[in-house]
Amino acid sequence: MSVIYDRVALIGLGLIAGSMAHAMREAGLAREITGFARSEATRQTAREIGLCDRVCDSAAEAVEAADLIVLAVPVGAMGEVAAEIAPHLKPGATLTDVGSVKQAVIEAVAPHIPAGVHFIPGHPLAGTEHSGPRSGFAGLFRNRWWLLTPLPDSDADAVARLSDLVRAIGAKTDRMDPAHHDLVLAVTSHAPHLIAYTMVGVADHLRRVTDEEVIQYSAAGFRDFTRIAASDPTMWRDVFLHNREATLDILGRFTEELFMLQRAIRMGDGQQLFDYFTRTRAIRRGIIEAGQDTEAPDFGRAPGVTKPA
Amino acid sequence: MSVIYDRVALIGLGLIAGSMAHAMREAGLAREITGFARSEATRQTAREIGLCDRVCDSAAEAVEAADLIVLAVPVGAMGEVAAEIAPHLKPGATLTDVGSVKQAVIEAVAPHIPAGVHFIPGHPLAGTEHSGPRSGFAGLFRNRWWLLTPLPDSDADAVARLSDLVRAIGAKTDRMDPAHHDLVLAVTSHAPHLIAYTMVGVADHLRRVTDEEVIQYSAAGFRDFTRIAASDPTMWRDVFLHNREATLDILGRFTEELFMLQRAIRMGDGQQLFDYFTRTRAIRRGIIEAGQDTEAPDFGRAPGVTKPA
Repeated sequence: MSVIYDRVALIGLGLIAGSMAHAMREAGLAREITGFARSEATRQTAREIGLCDRVCDSAAEAVEAADLIVLAVPVGAMGEVAAEIAPHLKPGATLTDVGSVKQAVIEAVAPHIPAGVHFIPGHPLAGTEHSGPRSGFAGLFRNRWWLLTPLPDSDADAVARLSDLVRAIGAKTDRMDPAHHDLVLAVTSHAPHLIAYTMVGVADHLRRVTDEEVIQYSAAGFRDFTRIAASDPTMWRDVFLHNREATLDILGRFTEELFMLQRAIRMGDGQQLFDYFTRTRAIRRGIIEAGQDTEAPDFGRAPGVTKPA
Repeated sequence: MSVIYDRVALIGLGLIAGSMAHAMREAGLAREITGFARSEATRQTAREIGLCDRVCDSAAEAVEAADLIVLAVPVGAMGEVAAEIAPHLKPGATLTDVGSVKQAVIEAVAPHIPAGVHFIPGHPLAGTEHSGPRSGFAGLFRNRWWLLTPLPDSDADAVARLSDLVRAIGAKTDRMDPAHHDLVLAVTSHAPHLIAYTMVGVADHLRRVTDEEVIQYSAAGFRDFTRIAASDPTMWRDVFLHNREATLDILGRFTEELFMLQRAIRMGDGQQLFDYFTRTRAIRRGIIEAGQDTEAPDFGRAPGVTKPA
């Protein structure tokens, strides 16, 4: 693989930026990778594990002479960081972000970007429930989608080059309208996360009633919710606050639907429940066919448990 | 390992019974395993893959002379099956079930059980999103809990012997009061499943709006919900109808909690969201410490993706 950007600056050194660093190094996609994180502890860890070629003590220093700048901070911090680095951006450079929300990031970042710098918003649909500079790994993006939401005046060559990087990292890429992105992600990610957080919160109350048994006997279902609900609190707070309308819209639909099923349970309407559950099963099939998950029986996961072929 | 029951009869040949058959054979825990399933197709498949030593064409025939009878049918079918086999049960035999709900099963089954037969209700907290006679595997119960909810007059020796079998199959076992079981499981399993079904249903509506993108770009969060919501529709219909009160109670608490978080989003109360998400993260920690899940970053799962040590 050949170098795609001479110098890449990563602003924020968590799971996504860290995984990008590993992946770009593994494939030799950048000549130098600089990094900056607001927290001194994070910078220290990044230096210890050699995450970047150079960890800088200011964002301004990190972006100096960079050809690609990646904003990998919580959505709510994007605007401030953009304002801070704007005067130090090299003409002709490309600036992208990896935020889970696109409209709010564009509104916060775009006004700061000087003419001659290409701002191309993006969102890798990849992650784990872990966070921080030690959580990254080169394979995170392999076979995952990395959506780009270019602006109407985005430079075509700059978009193509960023797409090349994304593909070289192992991801599949597609372009989407920012507002549409925010709706699709509200359904596939944001609302499910809030729901998982909520269910785990309910269990937390009941933990006292049940004398820790809720944790002890945590079964498939709840166990998967806790995994989701272990995701980074700052990141998710910002996602909900910045994709407010779409998330509330989906949650409204969710509640209506839940009430209908609750009523079916109360009324003993087994047919309605059965029909509903049969429909949802088909969706799972679609996701496996789309390559977004595997068919391996994950509920049975435990050390040493494998299904015979 | 030595034989624990001479003859074991499995009534219902789905994921749980099939996995029991594999596990008992692997460890040589039964001299003969008979099986019955209501569906001719299931019996045919079970014969083809040699799931049991003998697949019978009636439940009565299957339980003939059996020392242990396992009811592994949907919760709503337990009473009828119990009535059918009751006249054919051998005095001194043990009858257990693997239903996800205990009070309703006890009410439905116990009245049919003749004196001299030991009815010991049970519930293995194990499963995958797959079902049917081909879905079983010997390792399903390894390291999982298998709760027993003996009745006040249950024979201590019979309970001890069944516990031996459960442990020999690889599970951990504990005893619980049936009503308490139903509450704990409503929190850890039943309510989360209904919520997952609901969210996937909402996505199904939006699939048309978003032109299949909801499936195409299914991210962590939703993807995990679809896995849960792919579980067997009949089994889950029966669970909700038969653990109605506890499930509705938990769903009521869930809705209250969700409304509070929705309000925080609407009002832009980031502190409340952050605090809530920080608390739920701690619960995940508890589940990993209790050995109910592993710390491996599951969200990144994809063929060939592993995290370097």
